[in-house]
Amino acid sequence: MTTTAAFYIGDRTFEVRDVPPVSPGPGEVRIDVAYTGICGTDLHVLHGAMDHRVQPPGVIGHEMSGRVAELGGEVTDWSVGQAVTVMPLLWCGRCAACRAGHQHVCQRLTFVGIDSPGAMQSSWTVPADLLVAIPETLPLRHGALIEPTAVAVHDVRRSRLAAGEHAVVIGAGPVGLLIAAVARTVGAPVLLAELDAHRRAVGTAMGFTVVDPAADDLAGSVEQWTAGAGAAVVFEVSGSAAGVRVATDLLAVRGRLVVVAIHATPREVDLHRIFWRELEVLGVRVYHRADFTEAVRLLAAGEVPAEELISKVVPLSAVPEAFAALEDGGGVVKVLIECGGGE
Amino acid sequence: MTTTAAFYIGDRTFEVRDVPPVSPGPGEVRIDVAYTGICGTDLHVLHGAMDHRVQPPGVIGHEMSGRVAELGGEVTDWSVGQAVTVMPLLWCGRCAACRAGHQHVCQRLTFVGIDSPGAMQSSWTVPADLLVAIPETLPLRHGALIEPTAVAVHDVRRSRLAAGEHAVVIGAGPVGLLIAAVARTVGAPVLLAELDAHRRAVGTAMGFTVVDPAADDLAGSVEQWTAGAGAAVVFEVSGSAAGVRVATDLLAVRGRLVVVAIHATPREVDLHRIFWRELEVLGVRVYHRADFTEAVRLLAAGEVPAEELISKVVPLSAVPEAFAALEDGGGVVKVLIECGGGE
Repeated sequence: MTTTAAFYIGDRTFEVRDVPPVSPGPGEVRIDVAYTGICGTDLHVLHGAMDHRVQPPGVIGHEMSGRVAELGGEVTDWSVGQAVTVMPLLWCGRCAACRAGHQHVCQRLTFVGIDSPGAMQSSWTVPADLLVAIPETLPLRHGALIEPTAVAVHDVRRSRLAAGEHAVVIGAGPVGLLIAAVARTVGAPVLLAELDAHRRAVGTAMGFTVVDPAADDLAGSVEQWTAGAGAAVVFEVSGSAAGVRVATDLLAVRGRLVVVAIHATPREVDLHRIFWRELEVLGVRVYHRADFTEAVRLLAAGEVPAEELISKVVPLSAVPEAFAALEDGGGVVKVLIECGGGE
Repeated sequence: MTTTAAFYIGDRTFEVRDVPPVSPGPGEVRIDVAYTGICGTDLHVLHGAMDHRVQPPGVIGHEMSGRVAELGGEVTDWSVGQAVTVMPLLWCGRCAACRAGHQHVCQRLTFVGIDSPGAMQSSWTVPADLLVAIPETLPLRHGALIEPTAVAVHDVRRSRLAAGEHAVVIGAGPVGLLIAAVARTVGAPVLLAELDAHRRAVGTAMGFTVVDPAADDLAGSVEQWTAGAGAAVVFEVSGSAAGVRVATDLLAVRGRLVVVAIHATPREVDLHRIFWRELEVLGVRVYHRADFTEAVRLLAAGEVPAEELISKVVPLSAVPEAFAALEDGGGVVKVLIECGGGE
């Protein structure tokens, strides 16, 4: 038996190789991987921005679904054949963040799939503590969206968005659309701002109000949409300076700006508006286990429409081409890799 | 009887004039003003930045103490001779902010002492609804600090600072020092960062840890002071780009940056750090009535040491010179105007 794996070998290049599977040690399980999603962070890896963490050649990937294939010693809570995903966080348990109960932002966090081997392979061995059960009612194809949905659940939870409050999502990529879907489940009207026509079409098909900020006055649209009050919450998922610039203008008194996207450089922020309207800016990163549990529930209940977000599914052998297509941008939302295991 | 008043007449100029007192109408009271503090906002008025609101010639001033001198019709809750201060906010009651319970940041707020006549006069007529009682145990000289102390109470309350958490105050002017004093009352160790030597000396005399960020590495000092964890709360009271730049570096995971100062232009903010540590940025503005009540309590109990903050007291006739001295900066914290009434 061999494992087929997509290795990031540096220099913007992936290479698919067959390697021996990793036997699970004590407390570990080996998973037959069914699907692995490609995340924005994986694109950063492709760009070489994370070579110090991935240390090529390395296998990345952290949005996945599969079935337990083999149990290591001391693993008693799981059985072979069970459908699972992985919460890819390993914390130290001893730093100030961990001691304060914020293990998910541990100061020495290992993010599995970046700092250690990931799921873009047919067989993946991880600590059993990281497993999250997937109910049989949720197809494994949709199970690969649990991790990004957990991100969205965490972001909406931290925003304290309440039923009836208006939410704006700037940037309707996979995470932006998932945030919109989760925000809707709490009873909030949602408006999406997105430059890409395909992603706007997906947002419209999902039933959201959608604005093209290049063609329309976003602030004016939100003012009208909220009868002059402004939005209670804005999620900045575009990662752009323009997104940050406009975000504070969209918010009601005591509104919350949730910084979801990664901004590699400092951004100009309208602190006067933050003062004047007593706004909040909230940093959000990854998730708690409760966010995974809720993500599973929302996907299984069909409240987050996974199928509408999946643009295409490619085999492991096509990983190099799939990354190249994502690089060109536009025309896709979520791309899944079919890894050959579990189904 | 005449009222002596310091009029801002535009062009960086104050002029002291005698005018007839304003008789209180229905629901109003006339106050004999004892002391009025000069606020940073009043300096902005001097600079001409608020001419559209003050409409010179106008009397400004909103940090005051005095005694009720005359009751208008329908005023039954107050009696002549009572010691009072004024919460200088008039809200519309009908805008989205008011309807949401945030009247203090009403979208059509009238700030009394800027948008309407203020307290730099011996006799001042205001709506009785704005009065806040001063207990006889609190000298009127200290009562003039109730309003800025209410600002500090509001800021600390909104920061959710808890006992044992570390707080950093960037900028040790009157409001910065008051925030430090209030933060200490909740049981937080406080570190002040201040460029001005006199203000550092006042902070040291008040018992705080004080750092000169021009001479010492502020981030390193805070790291050491918090055993590597970072501060739970940073209050940005300097209004400087440098203050904003360093603030996010000082914060622990899930730390809160409270934007107290007014930043007239957008500032570069490290959104990556906000994401990475799940920080919060909180806008704060003025106060609720509960903040006034708590400010009175803290000053009367001596928990906020008013006397240490009062650098000098000048007569109304010296208002022009007092503003000129504050313009030169340094060497003072709070300057009070003795207005001739109430004591």
